[in-house]
Amino acid sequence: MKPIDGVQRTLNVALDERSYPIHIGTGLVGNADAIAPYLAGRQVMIVTNETVAPLYLDALRDALPGKLDVRCVVLPDGEAYKSVEYVGRIWDALLEAGFNRRCTLIALGGGVIGDMVGFAAASYQRGVAFIQVPTTLLAQVDSSVGGKTGVNHPLGKNMIGAFWQPRAVIVDIATLCTLPARELSAGLAEVIKYGLIRDAAFLTWLEDNMAALRGCDADTLAHAIALSCQIKADVVAADETEQGVRALLNLGHTFGHAIEAEQGYGAWLHGEAVGAGMAMAATLSHRLGWIDSAALERCEAVIVAAGLPLHAPAGMGREAFLAHMRRDKKNLDDELRLILLRALGDACITSETPPETLDALLDGYPRA
Amino acid sequence: MKPIDGVQRTLNVALDERSYPIHIGTGLVGNADAIAPYLAGRQVMIVTNETVAPLYLDALRDALPGKLDVRCVVLPDGEAYKSVEYVGRIWDALLEAGFNRRCTLIALGGGVIGDMVGFAAASYQRGVAFIQVPTTLLAQVDSSVGGKTGVNHPLGKNMIGAFWQPRAVIVDIATLCTLPARELSAGLAEVIKYGLIRDAAFLTWLEDNMAALRGCDADTLAHAIALSCQIKADVVAADETEQGVRALLNLGHTFGHAIEAEQGYGAWLHGEAVGAGMAMAATLSHRLGWIDSAALERCEAVIVAAGLPLHAPAGMGREAFLAHMRRDKKNLDDELRLILLRALGDACITSETPPETLDALLDGYPRA
Repeated sequence: MKPIDGVQRTLNVALDERSYPIHIGTGLVGNADAIAPYLAGRQVMIVTNETVAPLYLDALRDALPGKLDVRCVVLPDGEAYKSVEYVGRIWDALLEAGFNRRCTLIALGGGVIGDMVGFAAASYQRGVAFIQVPTTLLAQVDSSVGGKTGVNHPLGKNMIGAFWQPRAVIVDIATLCTLPARELSAGLAEVIKYGLIRDAAFLTWLEDNMAALRGCDADTLAHAIALSCQIKADVVAADETEQGVRALLNLGHTFGHAIEAEQGYGAWLHGEAVGAGMAMAATLSHRLGWIDSAALERCEAVIVAAGLPLHAPAGMGREAFLAHMRRDKKNLDDELRLILLRALGDACITSETPPETLDALLDGYPRA
Repeated sequence: MKPIDGVQRTLNVALDERSYPIHIGTGLVGNADAIAPYLAGRQVMIVTNETVAPLYLDALRDALPGKLDVRCVVLPDGEAYKSVEYVGRIWDALLEAGFNRRCTLIALGGGVIGDMVGFAAASYQRGVAFIQVPTTLLAQVDSSVGGKTGVNHPLGKNMIGAFWQPRAVIVDIATLCTLPARELSAGLAEVIKYGLIRDAAFLTWLEDNMAALRGCDADTLAHAIALSCQIKADVVAADETEQGVRALLNLGHTFGHAIEAEQGYGAWLHGEAVGAGMAMAATLSHRLGWIDSAALERCEAVIVAAGLPLHAPAGMGREAFLAHMRRDKKNLDDELRLILLRALGDACITSETPPETLDALLDGYPRA
């Protein structure tokens, strides 16, 4: 394949006939060469939200070849709209436009848009093509890669969904220039996660480069995104449907999902909840004697350096945590399963945390 | 594997790691040996409807091993309830029960229940196990086999769904004794379809045995079900996601789906609409010169002998047909694709029907 203008790095998610590339570069949203090769047919539905639409929708639409039938759906912005009801608006638009099985959905936005559009694509006419064009750091390093799609249910986050792989992920680093600082920090939570679970050297690099990342330095971001996507792609290729190693990507997420669900989706950003959740998982790992206090302090310091919260929400008690954690998708039968750290750069899944140790953590962990 | 009491015949749907058996026999609903081997874990949700529940729910529940956590959802009966809203009731029940990824859904009922439970299973926590226990002839020979799941949308039938294979299909022929004659006829539409698309000898056998089938003779039904399931299993194994040959299973369905959608789901039974639709497809095949008038007459006679309608609904005009047919899932880009007959026992997919020929058929075809 000839190089595409603006693409600085291309990775591959290796899933046999469902394999796809991740193109990382600058100005890709408005670059037809980066996107058009992955369209299935002539019918294209761009789905975005009210925040992203004014910034990038015209650039993307104008870049697509003129012979296509391009339609757009603009949803309200926020995790509160990540529901079956709003996926229904995408289905409605597809049917009203008379779109068939050879149509392509393009998800232009953050993780919420990507997850919703992915599920809409997975379930429209039993599955159509889709392309991820993530515009937040969190979506670029995590949610757009790997095929997890879905929506929230009042009783749990991401409870309704499908594994459905995109045809390509187009990461335009330039979109991060318009991202609020709080959202950039939220994305860094997932970047830190990759270092913690799999790559101690990357964690050290993050400690050294956190200021440049938060300052939106393009080359530093490109390196962090590429390394994060590579780790995610490797894990997904090894375990597409989370029967084993893929669960490690959930470090901090069991506690984090409980925080999000309890606070109401959207009150805390996903990455913020994961930040506090990783600190809780590291604290538990330390109490179990798996990591020493120096390692715990490094975890906490890098989370704080990224601009993320370390503490659990004020007023959220042990039972509130446990009620949500018992519904976690990683659990099998009645066992609560947690991702913990054996060392920095080495995570494991365990169902053997003594209940009294977990209770003590949830009772005593600092609240904001 | 040792033989299971009551199982007269076992077929295999060959889909690599997603392969599964179809057990056909008598009294299987209440036979734990037939069902329990396919449960994924200890959590079991039986989903049925208000018509089937009084007949078979207790038998199924009582047959399951006592150590399981068994819950039930009873939905209203009918195609009118085959919607995302009612699938939502299944999701709600699963979450309220705290069911995890290792749970198993059991679909106890006809095609509507099977399709809805299959989609609920496909989309709950990104996919959990399910078992089909079809209690109508239509579900036993068609919808329970092959992994097509989904619900209707106001703008089209089965437009929202997934390919999701069951772990087993348990066909209890005894359930057909309680089936209304009209429903048995509707199931025979799909049985006739297999003969028409793939097996002229089976079609001849059906012509000879229609009275015994409609009289609910167990051995005759067992033979028809086994042959139908074998043809379906072979086609699905060759083309799981309908990229090619699987589309042939849609003979009569393009016209039939239009009839169902226009009349309001449930006014005509699916099999009745398919009966009239197959007659329309055969008529069109004849007008194109592909089958002679003797063959057309045999098609019409066997459809009538099964107790199915030959004519389109009164008052349903050409444009009403075309509006629905343009949204058919088989279409690619703007091409209308139809399944037609090259001969009895030999169907093909074509996008080359001259529009004026199709218009003339839709204008002139007899109405009820």
